[in-house]
Amino acid sequence: MTNPTFDKLEEALREITDLQAAAALLEWDQQTYMPPGGAPARARQLATLEKTAHSRLVSDDIGKLLDDLKDLEAAGPYDAYPVALIRLARRRYDRARKIPPDFAAELTAHNAATYHAWTKARPANDFATIQPYLERNVELSRQWANYIGDYERIADPLIEAADFGMTTSRVETLFAELRQQLVPLVQAIAERPPVDTACLHQHFPADKQRAFGEHVVKHFGYDFTRGRQDKTHHPFMIGFSINDVRITTRFKEDDLSEALFSTMHEAGHALYELGIDPACEGTLLAHGASSAVHESQSRLWENLVGRSRPFWNHFYGQLQQTFPDQLATVDLDTFYHAINAVAPSLIRTDADEVTYNLHVMIRFQLGLDLLEGRLAVADLPDAWRAAYQRDLGITPPDDKDGVLQDVHWFSYLIGGNFQCYTLGNIMNAQFFAAALRAHPDIPTDIEKGRFDTLRTWLQQNIHRHGSTFTADELIQQTTNQPLSVTPYIQYLHNKYTKLYDL
Amino acid sequence: MTNPTFDKLEEALREITDLQAAAALLEWDQQTYMPPGGAPARARQLATLEKTAHSRLVSDDIGKLLDDLKDLEAAGPYDAYPVALIRLARRRYDRARKIPPDFAAELTAHNAATYHAWTKARPANDFATIQPYLERNVELSRQWANYIGDYERIADPLIEAADFGMTTSRVETLFAELRQQLVPLVQAIAERPPVDTACLHQHFPADKQRAFGEHVVKHFGYDFTRGRQDKTHHPFMIGFSINDVRITTRFKEDDLSEALFSTMHEAGHALYELGIDPACEGTLLAHGASSAVHESQSRLWENLVGRSRPFWNHFYGQLQQTFPDQLATVDLDTFYHAINAVAPSLIRTDADEVTYNLHVMIRFQLGLDLLEGRLAVADLPDAWRAAYQRDLGITPPDDKDGVLQDVHWFSYLIGGNFQCYTLGNIMNAQFFAAALRAHPDIPTDIEKGRFDTLRTWLQQNIHRHGSTFTADELIQQTTNQPLSVTPYIQYLHNKYTKLYDL
Repeated sequence: MTNPTFDKLEEALREITDLQAAAALLEWDQQTYMPPGGAPARARQLATLEKTAHSRLVSDDIGKLLDDLKDLEAAGPYDAYPVALIRLARRRYDRARKIPPDFAAELTAHNAATYHAWTKARPANDFATIQPYLERNVELSRQWANYIGDYERIADPLIEAADFGMTTSRVETLFAELRQQLVPLVQAIAERPPVDTACLHQHFPADKQRAFGEHVVKHFGYDFTRGRQDKTHHPFMIGFSINDVRITTRFKEDDLSEALFSTMHEAGHALYELGIDPACEGTLLAHGASSAVHESQSRLWENLVGRSRPFWNHFYGQLQQTFPDQLATVDLDTFYHAINAVAPSLIRTDADEVTYNLHVMIRFQLGLDLLEGRLAVADLPDAWRAAYQRDLGITPPDDKDGVLQDVHWFSYLIGGNFQCYTLGNIMNAQFFAAALRAHPDIPTDIEKGRFDTLRTWLQQNIHRHGSTFTADELIQQTTNQPLSVTPYIQYLHNKYTKLYDL
Repeated sequence: MTNPTFDKLEEALREITDLQAAAALLEWDQQTYMPPGGAPARARQLATLEKTAHSRLVSDDIGKLLDDLKDLEAAGPYDAYPVALIRLARRRYDRARKIPPDFAAELTAHNAATYHAWTKARPANDFATIQPYLERNVELSRQWANYIGDYERIADPLIEAADFGMTTSRVETLFAELRQQLVPLVQAIAERPPVDTACLHQHFPADKQRAFGEHVVKHFGYDFTRGRQDKTHHPFMIGFSINDVRITTRFKEDDLSEALFSTMHEAGHALYELGIDPACEGTLLAHGASSAVHESQSRLWENLVGRSRPFWNHFYGQLQQTFPDQLATVDLDTFYHAINAVAPSLIRTDADEVTYNLHVMIRFQLGLDLLEGRLAVADLPDAWRAAYQRDLGITPPDDKDGVLQDVHWFSYLIGGNFQCYTLGNIMNAQFFAAALRAHPDIPTDIEKGRFDTLRTWLQQNIHRHGSTFTADELIQQTTNQPLSVTPYIQYLHNKYTKLYDL
């Protein structure tokens, strides 16, 4: 296609994505290698890059180009590269134009200050100090939503920013359906004898853990010539190009599952971005369709593959060879039960596959209660304890492992940052079920340590499209049905009925 | 000072330096951790950052601010922060405005293509393939110089871009003076029996080399909370803030001197930037005064300190303890002679302290001959061989270790990229002599492993000023004389007369 107006838009957008990629590298460095002295300058440099990219996006030039390209966009076809790029650019432009620059600057500064305060408040178990920051964050989150406007529920714009097409009501409905099945399942498991996980809590040297984890994700198809793994405090995946998508992990030498499943999880995210059509390289389209779809890919490789029996039928012998002193006398069955043990716990990111969703639902609901004015920040710690007691039967002994446990509310707007985790679980089962219908031999392949069929199906049906389709469109065209909790509930029931002999 | 116009200039310049710092981090990553797949996107991202920073610098807004600040600049005092910043900004602005954007883009693209071709040509020992790239580079270098204009010799603008205040004629005069003393010294040494360097060429595990090198530079004062050391192919120092100045190194397990002296060298560069007045943070002033002054600091710590007898009187016992199998039976005298052995060699970066300058002078002269039209690129390999035979008595067996040996001519303009190395040597002796006049006890301190007096003198007299003064101003005010080769010649004569019993 030769359309000079489109070429101009493409070039202008490419510069914006280049600036964003540079910011991403600065963040990666901040979380992996940056010496502590670099922090103040890094915050300033990130703010400059964000401001520069943002001011380009909201420029009248981009607005004019988008106006001039309305006919081209309308002409379709919907999934043609130029049409998809214009559509996504328009969506980003329209949203960004609604946020006043002064407000954006205030938000950036407040986020940085809150994050800094949280890094001190958490170890000190000091909610009181962080409370005013959080109160201001609730206000800023509401203001942000009001700038975007056009909502039924105030969390809608916040949710949609991460998960386009999703609304508060849709999330509530899906979560209610899931919850109805999940709570009895957790209760039934709780009545069974607890699983012994001692085999995972021996001494496992970090360098061997690293080697085994990288061995596994190489088999998944993670390409170390187009990525790498580094150590960090809070593991994440980050991409600077579809040919440079990196993962990070952390090692606990007394917990084999920590780094291993985290590496698989982040590799799942990475496979998504590595699998995007090369034609999208350097464009807005070269990212996942939504936070939840992204999470569906990470959870699929971590849980549906990485915690499955076929997977360990193949890999457990290799793991025993890597850790003979620790695992030679531990049989596969014991190990398989240990990595799938379900038990209520305090920390979301350490939770098992089943109770994890209860953590997410609690967090989603508390965020909504704050935003919709049913809950005051001052009452949040009590509300947190009550919710954990109600849903998981345990009460955090302090705020450190309660409301202060992770950075989400203390580094960004409140309201749209938790639904994606459980939506990702729901989606990953629906996608996997569709892959199994197309290729019933996938479990047999996995049992042979082969992942090509699965990865290729995911790449062809999901990854390659990048952000061309919305999450709902992807689900419909890939699974021939709208988003549904049924496959996920079936998956959990099948797996845990056997595991716990329910 | 509250001057709203200056505040605006400062803010605009800060955004430019933030973009440049981001570009620097992208380069650091490219040379240390980036997976190979990331290369094409990285080149594009760097080009975008450079273009963005450049277009801001040459904007009419900056021009207007500089015009409005002429009176403030003229009012002085010369070394006041606002005055120095305006002066430097004006110098950068004036130069940048002279280069047409299309030419700058062509240059960036040609540099990238040439570098890429060089990475293939060097291992293949294939000068013919790179020849047309180099021919074009000679043309582009001349064009660049002509855009800057206002010169006596065409290399002047290229030299001045790296070493403000220096000209082709000044460099020629200084080099001729030095050469007159250097050639007889090299000849006299050549007539002495060769020094046995076998003690340096045993097996030295990289991890122990790293630990010892970092131990040494910590004693120099290199602060690992404001920097770090990583591995790379071609060691360099790079800063993203005066509180995040990193060094890189490479290890050869059969050569103890490679990483050790490279680490000291890069730490010398880093101490310069770490020592800049915090008031300059995030501004154009937060860099060294010139390439040569920067090099004077790295060479000072590498050679005048790191290859000195007092230094090893203190550290050699520790080195022996680090490598007992290799060094327990090697006495200090043997080791000290080995690390200071003078012998003609092919590769500039591997050369000893004395012959190094001959490499630099050859490269400077060949670059000048190309630029001034006395030498055709096609004849460069022959001219290279002739020069090495004439000055060092050896002829490279191939172009790989001859004209293709390093990246300088194949990644940037020709003409201004070699003088700084020998100018740095000249300056480092002049600075060190001044430091010794002020503190005659510095060698005694070094002998005790204490570097505070020296580092503090350097910091107070050189480092803290950043780019406030030119190299000539710094030298005059610090040493009470203009730049002179005498201290360097004295240093070499004193040291090598003893070492070689001349």
